[in-house]
Amino acid sequence: MRYFGGIEGGATHSHLVICDESGESVGTTSGLGTNHWGIGIPECARRIADMVERCKEEAKIPMDTPLASLGLSLSGCEQEATNRELEQELQNTFPNLSDSYAVSSDTMGSMFTASSIGGIVLISGTGSNCLLRNPDGSTANCGGWGNFLGDEGSAWFISHRSVKVVFDDMDNFKKSPYPIEKTWALIKEHFSIETRYDMLTHCYARFDKPFFANMCKKLASSAESGDKLALSLFQEAGEHLARMIKSLLPKVSKELVKSGELGVVCVGSVWSSWNLLQEAFTNELTKMPIPYNLNLVRITKSSAYGACYLGADNAQFDLPRNYADNITVLHTFPASSNPLKNGMTNKTCDY
Amino acid sequence: MRYFGGIEGGATHSHLVICDESGESVGTTSGLGTNHWGIGIPECARRIADMVERCKEEAKIPMDTPLASLGLSLSGCEQEATNRELEQELQNTFPNLSDSYAVSSDTMGSMFTASSIGGIVLISGTGSNCLLRNPDGSTANCGGWGNFLGDEGSAWFISHRSVKVVFDDMDNFKKSPYPIEKTWALIKEHFSIETRYDMLTHCYARFDKPFFANMCKKLASSAESGDKLALSLFQEAGEHLARMIKSLLPKVSKELVKSGELGVVCVGSVWSSWNLLQEAFTNELTKMPIPYNLNLVRITKSSAYGACYLGADNAQFDLPRNYADNITVLHTFPASSNPLKNGMTNKTCDY
Repeated sequence: MRYFGGIEGGATHSHLVICDESGESVGTTSGLGTNHWGIGIPECARRIADMVERCKEEAKIPMDTPLASLGLSLSGCEQEATNRELEQELQNTFPNLSDSYAVSSDTMGSMFTASSIGGIVLISGTGSNCLLRNPDGSTANCGGWGNFLGDEGSAWFISHRSVKVVFDDMDNFKKSPYPIEKTWALIKEHFSIETRYDMLTHCYARFDKPFFANMCKKLASSAESGDKLALSLFQEAGEHLARMIKSLLPKVSKELVKSGELGVVCVGSVWSSWNLLQEAFTNELTKMPIPYNLNLVRITKSSAYGACYLGADNAQFDLPRNYADNITVLHTFPASSNPLKNGMTNKTCDY
Repeated sequence: MRYFGGIEGGATHSHLVICDESGESVGTTSGLGTNHWGIGIPECARRIADMVERCKEEAKIPMDTPLASLGLSLSGCEQEATNRELEQELQNTFPNLSDSYAVSSDTMGSMFTASSIGGIVLISGTGSNCLLRNPDGSTANCGGWGNFLGDEGSAWFISHRSVKVVFDDMDNFKKSPYPIEKTWALIKEHFSIETRYDMLTHCYARFDKPFFANMCKKLASSAESGDKLALSLFQEAGEHLARMIKSLLPKVSKELVKSGELGVVCVGSVWSSWNLLQEAFTNELTKMPIPYNLNLVRITKSSAYGACYLGADNAQFDLPRNYADNITVLHTFPASSNPLKNGMTNKTCDY
């Protein structure tokens, strides 16, 4: 029996799955963060080996049996050169760990948990990013520049905008279109502050992006309970997220949508508020004719599965899998055509 | 003969002037930065005493003759409690330095170099801020929250916007209304980079706000030579700066404008590009009726003079001064009235 491993790696923790030749999971485990930019490549390799060894033990796989393949979809693995370094480190320091490796970014793990051919991954968590991968391996992206230059549609962006709108209103610099009282109360509560001056330490000396972004949950509750300002911030986010998809559509290859459908894997906590995003998202999308269905999906399993599939594919083993088991559909936008263009082709010229 | 000192203090350097009873300067000197938040109050006091002693020596004022007053208009002196601490430190450690002190922010030094009654100071340098002071001592402000939350209209904001517009255009996230080529070339030159990825270190790990803001000078040259994108960024800045003034007008007291005129002291390097700001600034201001002249001025002397006047006023000595010698007029907006309101009061009802 051969075994195929996959790891989903984040900055703070990681998940491993090992499947047998039938594609069934025989063991899973979790471990420390595996972003090599934070911990260095040797420590990253050590943590990976540690997870594999613990999981083999649990799954009663002999320690001296290497995995047939190990797919690594790790945060921080965006560059080919350092990915090769990590693979080398694993081969040299842990020669019996796996017969082959496939190293890619965490985004690829998410994408290939949902699809065998690629598609779009739209991340909206603390930050935001949108990536396209075509079947020929070509990629494109929109965003991903971090909070200084973007992060539109993310929890951080929504939280920051709430503070900015309140400050500008109180400054009489730009009046908020909706009352600010509930949002200001929520900001004071989240940051445990009393005045706007107390906010400065949270923006500079003690800026903590995840903590700042966490306020988004409270804003979501506030929007749910009818606060118009909070709702407007989610509407803005919905529009931004739709624009990120639209920005990449010109680069979608025919091969990717030959089924008549483009999959968009929605990753991150902000998608839990889809009901707040939906209207503005849809409005923005309908401004552009899209000649295929757009299928927004969320993955229901760890993206370690996608990593595992990428590893097996790379080892040229046809690991059985059923993508439909790994996802739920968030929303489907039916194909639309350009009404103007249709009008021009269909209409009979009367004069 | 009695002597009156004034210090303009910044984060990196400071200036001192000592005047005699006729208001004539008998000596000036400069010294290290005197923002106590960076160096601590004892060191700040030591630097102040050092400047005064050097200047006394040059002006041949006996060392054991205290100044009659010393006005300190220092960056970082925005809070009453720490201002009192600084005054105490000076009195205790340097008992012969000055008979009295008046501590205020650097902004107040600028304002009182131009006027005896107050007015508005509109700062647009690396960052931006707008402050109003009425003759009764009441104050209000708009902005001043730093680059994370604002700085609209500043060199940093203009520079950051140029990067953002270029990135969004290249991402196809938001197309720039004007060609980006010249601005992108200028960004690459300023930061010595080749790709957008190289920009990230300048936004995060090695973010240097003054260096980032310095790009504004190059954008100004680019706008001067006809680049439409660069020009549009200065137009946006002009609108922002005008909005900062407008935001404070409701808090201007009748006493401040009883001469029929409101003085706005324009401080900072961005005002050197007034020709690029003017049109949008004016358009924005004319959207609101203002029943008094608005007089934009720049000060032509060190704001150590304003600090000196504040010190003398505080010591109740009527130090002669001629404000007209300290300023040049950048622009005057004549009083306008609300056309709607005029229409309603003046017109005869015909039906």
